[in-house]
Amino acid sequence: MATIKDVAKEAGVSVATVSRVINKSPKASQSSIDAVTQAMSKLGYRPNAAARALVSQSTNTMGVLVGDVSDPFFGTLVKSVDNVARENGKHILIGNGYHNPEDERQALELLINSRCEAIVIHSKGLSDEELIGYAKEVKGMVLINRHIPELAERCISLDNLKGAYLATEYLIRHGHTKIACIASSHDIEDTDERLQGYQAALKDHDIELSKSYVEYGEPNSDGGETAMTNLLTKSLAITGVVAYNDYMAAGALAALDQNGIDVPEKVSMVGFDDGLIARFVNPSLTTIRYPIEMMAERAARLALALSRDEQVEDDTIIFSPTLVRRNSVDRL
Amino acid sequence: MATIKDVAKEAGVSVATVSRVINKSPKASQSSIDAVTQAMSKLGYRPNAAARALVSQSTNTMGVLVGDVSDPFFGTLVKSVDNVARENGKHILIGNGYHNPEDERQALELLINSRCEAIVIHSKGLSDEELIGYAKEVKGMVLINRHIPELAERCISLDNLKGAYLATEYLIRHGHTKIACIASSHDIEDTDERLQGYQAALKDHDIELSKSYVEYGEPNSDGGETAMTNLLTKSLAITGVVAYNDYMAAGALAALDQNGIDVPEKVSMVGFDDGLIARFVNPSLTTIRYPIEMMAERAARLALALSRDEQVEDDTIIFSPTLVRRNSVDRL
Repeated sequence: MATIKDVAKEAGVSVATVSRVINKSPKASQSSIDAVTQAMSKLGYRPNAAARALVSQSTNTMGVLVGDVSDPFFGTLVKSVDNVARENGKHILIGNGYHNPEDERQALELLINSRCEAIVIHSKGLSDEELIGYAKEVKGMVLINRHIPELAERCISLDNLKGAYLATEYLIRHGHTKIACIASSHDIEDTDERLQGYQAALKDHDIELSKSYVEYGEPNSDGGETAMTNLLTKSLAITGVVAYNDYMAAGALAALDQNGIDVPEKVSMVGFDDGLIARFVNPSLTTIRYPIEMMAERAARLALALSRDEQVEDDTIIFSPTLVRRNSVDRL
Repeated sequence: MATIKDVAKEAGVSVATVSRVINKSPKASQSSIDAVTQAMSKLGYRPNAAARALVSQSTNTMGVLVGDVSDPFFGTLVKSVDNVARENGKHILIGNGYHNPEDERQALELLINSRCEAIVIHSKGLSDEELIGYAKEVKGMVLINRHIPELAERCISLDNLKGAYLATEYLIRHGHTKIACIASSHDIEDTDERLQGYQAALKDHDIELSKSYVEYGEPNSDGGETAMTNLLTKSLAITGVVAYNDYMAAGALAALDQNGIDVPEKVSMVGFDDGLIARFVNPSLTTIRYPIEMMAERAARLALALSRDEQVEDDTIIFSPTLVRRNSVDRL
């Protein structure tokens, strides 16, 4: 690969002149700009991004840490951040944290060491304390789908409790009282908040159900299938189910189908996320919309603004889920 | 943020000594290593990745260019590359090219300028000539899902023709002869190859069908729904359909369902990709498996090896699709 010396030689100027042209110094003359540009093009020379970053002390890179980019939920998050980055002439570095502290820490360290000045983080593994420490170090760091009181203005989160409340109340308004909850077995705050939403809606409508109506499983379709099978085994005369997410709902639908129980005629089902699969399952899934696109865009804009010590006008930090009505709920 | 000068002052050594410690120079004494490490930790100083990259002329970054990371097909591709990167102590930079030349070029330029020495590229917008030019410049560049004869040993591709042939022949073996093809309206090689596979299977079994049996649409569920509706309008007595991908198949299933045509009893359907939705649609989709995980892993390893002038033992460059049998095909 051609070096800056080769370019200087080809252009008939000094290395310092080439450097001035590359770094867009006002001292570079038009004739040297022309000569250097031509020489660079002829030799296929690319000004080294690392060298330019060192001069400008900025890498033009935004960081984003997600659980697993192959999950469309995170893919959508990453895409939203990328859109904001592109608008601002930046590109993104991504890290997968797989919801465990060690991977999240390593991915985050890489982003910080790569001088990402604006970073959007979806972390479920690291402690509040550790994230507060990182936030002190990186002023353009914003958390998504997490609420830490000490970092409240840098946390973009969803009102999970309200989402599960909406789902449960929707079933109640359709005449259901024997409502089961398929919860996640993962020990993250989303799990607790959604369970609390389910319980709060039941309580507000004076419905008392034993703990048998709650089953836990891995937050995927297999987990949902197992949880639904366990619920059926308990002979609880369930007519409605609120699931932790759409994947668990899809698994639960499969279990009901295998047992010849029609949805929504015999059992109604509400999912959570309104992800890719919600409209493809049968029946199409009534679910709670997680506005991840909007939240990720907001997080990315906030991270950029903070990194530049700028103010942002939009100050939404807690987003509300909404209900999307499809075909998996029937009046009892 | 602390600078290298602050660290030198805190450690009571020169800036040059700090630099030697950071760059792991053998000239650094143990006492200066200890003093500098302590000072860096106390001040929260992070050796600048850009500066280290400049010294080592390597960024420890792999690049990956995909169509759109929010599509799970590309999310899976990115994850596979990331796994190989992590194994090798590297992290990844991603770019979205949205299958158009301008975005692909810009994303690729960014990856190259960021000194990614190993790059996996999924490009459908750039011409062969332009990609050959980039390949000359970046020796660790590998193409995935594309075949360019001049770069044959750096192209990891799928035998698309064989995939569509398998799908069509599977229907023929189940007694179908009136087999429609739902093709993509995108002008990329995959479109042609899959259409050729459909035609070749028909020809090999002496089945002659008019062009009316082929409908084109956007390669998503809406496109599939419209294409299927158009096919139904033509009164062709179709009993089998091969779709360009699972999304189009899902849309076609929706159109059939709306028209009260049972699948697989009246019409059999075969998808392509075996993506996330294939097992969630109703009935679950018999489809052609696109081994994108395996292909992306292979591409990433090849890109790394080429960037290091190393040999790789595995020399598979054209991967074969396989048929995944689920519930959308019935014997006629």
